[in-house]
Amino acid sequence: MSNPYELYYWPSIQGRGEFVRLALEEASVKYIDVARAHGKGLGTGAMMKLMDAGKVDHAPFAPPFLRAGKILVSQTANILLFIGDHYKLAPANEVGRLFVHGLQLTIADLVVEVHDTHHPISGNYYYEDQKPEAKKRADDFRRERIPKFLGYFEDVIKRNGGKYLTGARLTYADLSLFQIVAGLHYAFPKHMKRIAKNYSKIMQIHDLVAARPRIAEYLNSDRRLPFNEEGIFRHYPELDG
Amino acid sequence: MSNPYELYYWPSIQGRGEFVRLALEEASVKYIDVARAHGKGLGTGAMMKLMDAGKVDHAPFAPPFLRAGKILVSQTANILLFIGDHYKLAPANEVGRLFVHGLQLTIADLVVEVHDTHHPISGNYYYEDQKPEAKKRADDFRRERIPKFLGYFEDVIKRNGGKYLTGARLTYADLSLFQIVAGLHYAFPKHMKRIAKNYSKIMQIHDLVAARPRIAEYLNSDRRLPFNEEGIFRHYPELDG
Repeated sequence: MSNPYELYYWPSIQGRGEFVRLALEEASVKYIDVARAHGKGLGTGAMMKLMDAGKVDHAPFAPPFLRAGKILVSQTANILLFIGDHYKLAPANEVGRLFVHGLQLTIADLVVEVHDTHHPISGNYYYEDQKPEAKKRADDFRRERIPKFLGYFEDVIKRNGGKYLTGARLTYADLSLFQIVAGLHYAFPKHMKRIAKNYSKIMQIHDLVAARPRIAEYLNSDRRLPFNEEGIFRHYPELDG
Repeated sequence: MSNPYELYYWPSIQGRGEFVRLALEEASVKYIDVARAHGKGLGTGAMMKLMDAGKVDHAPFAPPFLRAGKILVSQTANILLFIGDHYKLAPANEVGRLFVHGLQLTIADLVVEVHDTHHPISGNYYYEDQKPEAKKRADDFRRERIPKFLGYFEDVIKRNGGKYLTGARLTYADLSLFQIVAGLHYAFPKHMKRIAKNYSKIMQIHDLVAARPRIAEYLNSDRRLPFNEEGIFRHYPELDG
């Protein structure tokens, strides 16, 4: 591909775009973070323009999406499938490739549930307008859902030898698991401190990913946005139990 | 593959398993609906056994999952990706293939939101224990989310010529869109009656799919479970506006 890839995502949050950024960074792919850039054909306006399904071929439903030459690919897990295939961040054989994608889709389910801890009624209302409901949903999430998801990933890692999710080699799902751990620690610091010891293999993947040279460089750069209370992982102390 | 495929899903609901069943039926693939069958190595127990990630290679997080020879593939959209590739229910070229998968993942997002209209707080509580919250979430879903999702799919169909989602040829995403329409009509009959006219292309795909010989035969068979109030699409009149 002669032109750099174009990543389209909301400019002020990590959000779902971050799972894509981590993969692009680890793969050392040149990309423009379009909505965060300034100039002709850049910025949030350029992103909105591509989402007009009446006028654009293969228009995405929502960010993030990636333009790679002639390909316009949307939905986080689908973008990672594409990057995984082209940059060896997934096994080449069908059995392994589908397994990694299944793991990623399970991570995507977890991401929806994390978001809904602070927005159980609607993304169209402020958190402040759904606080009692958020409290209930977050309580259930901490008690029931975190153990279910993290217990599953912990078992998968152990079953595959105890290093990365699928064995000795890093895949895009490991990069996403890193982001899940970082985000859960940001959103639920007290709770995560209490339970981290139950998920030592997951925590080890977090540390292994953070220490990879390209990821370490990225995390220290200003390309990595900080977590904040506009994104998916938000720290509201009243939701931390 | 010499052995028939094995589909694993909860035996008494359409749920997410139905999106897979529709694709298997259209592709005329021989499959055993394991949890609905009786005998040695069959039934819900056989399904639960495969979900033990500590003991099973490539164990799924949740149903549905499909065993196809050596492949154990989980997550609805991932199973459809696999079926699409092997049975020509998706374009063979990368651009089209990724676009269809993106559409399917958008349908998957819609399915989560439909489910959460009756379970906005937790799947671990009964609907009866979260009725006020369900009312609020369903109101927002009908008013804001249905138009956003259906408006997008309607535009996509028009953009691609007005027959199926990606043009003249059926893909697995069309089969899933059929199920979305059927399910929304079941869950929100009054509301859908009012708004169906705004989505004539989507409704046409519903009818085209229902009339396909293999699908018509399936829908009339007892392999097709009825909708009920245990599944994703539930009819609670108080949520229908």
